[in-house]
Amino acid sequence: MSLIPDSHLDLLTRPLCGHLATRRDDGSLQVTPMWFSYDGTDLSFTTTSTRRKYRNLEQDPHLSVSINDPDQPYRYLEVRGVVAGIDPDPTGAFFDTLARRYGLPYDPPVADAADRVVIRMRPTAISKQ
Amino acid sequence: MSLIPDSHLDLLTRPLCGHLATRRDDGSLQVTPMWFSYDGTDLSFTTTSTRRKYRNLEQDPHLSVSINDPDQPYRYLEVRGVVAGIDPDPTGAFFDTLARRYGLPYDPPVADAADRVVIRMRPTAISKQ
Repeated sequence: MSLIPDSHLDLLTRPLCGHLATRRDDGSLQVTPMWFSYDGTDLSFTTTSTRRKYRNLEQDPHLSVSINDPDQPYRYLEVRGVVAGIDPDPTGAFFDTLARRYGLPYDPPVADAADRVVIRMRPTAISKQ
Repeated sequence: MSLIPDSHLDLLTRPLCGHLATRRDDGSLQVTPMWFSYDGTDLSFTTTSTRRKYRNLEQDPHLSVSINDPDQPYRYLEVRGVVAGIDPDPTGAFFDTLARRYGLPYDPPVADAADRVVIRMRPTAISKQ
C-alpha cells in the first residue's frame, strides 16, 4: 500500500516544483527546487553525476522533498525517503520526460546528457497539511 | 558583508514560503514549508518547543532553506546555515509579526504561545539561479 494519502496525491501528479533536501559531506544540509515524477511507488529526479546532489546521495542516501500547493498556500506534502537506485540516463531520455511534464521548450538531447542520471527515491514516511 | 546577493534579496523580503530542511535523530531529513523573516543578517522562523523541528535543531544545528519565485519558476535562492540561537517567544509576539507579514487573519495570541520559540538561522552559504 502506498504511503501517499489520496488527499495529497495531486501534489505528486501535477507538475509542481519539489524542494529536495540532501546532506553534504561537511554535515550541512542542501535544499533546492527540483522537477520530479511519481510512478505510484518511487519519486524520480534528474541530475548529473558531476553535481553536488549526486555526490551527497552517494555518501548519505537520505533525502526528503516538500511540495506545496500554489493554489492553497498552507496545503503541502512532505515525502521523506532513501535512494532506491541511481541509474544512468546517457541519452537524456528521462530529462526529456520531465521537460515535457513541466512544459520546458528545449532542443533535445539536453547538452549534458552524457552525465545525466535518474535518482529514484523510495518513500519511507510523509507529513502533510 | 551579507552573503545574500542583491539580485535575489527580494526572495527574502517578499512574504514567500521557504522550504526548511533539518535532520532528524535517525539520520533522515525533514523539509517543510515555513514562514520566515530576514533582518539583513539572520533568517528567523517560528515553531514550538514541542515540535520535531525544534528537537532536530537541538541535536544538529544545520539547516537550509529554499525559496523559489512564484512569478519565475526557475528562479530561486537557497540559504544554508546554522542555528544562531533559539529564543522563547512566550507571548507569541514573533508569531504575530509573521502572521501579519503573511496576511494570516487570527485572534492573537496564538493558541500555543506558551511553547513558541524563534529559531534564528545564520547564513553560511547560498546557491541561486
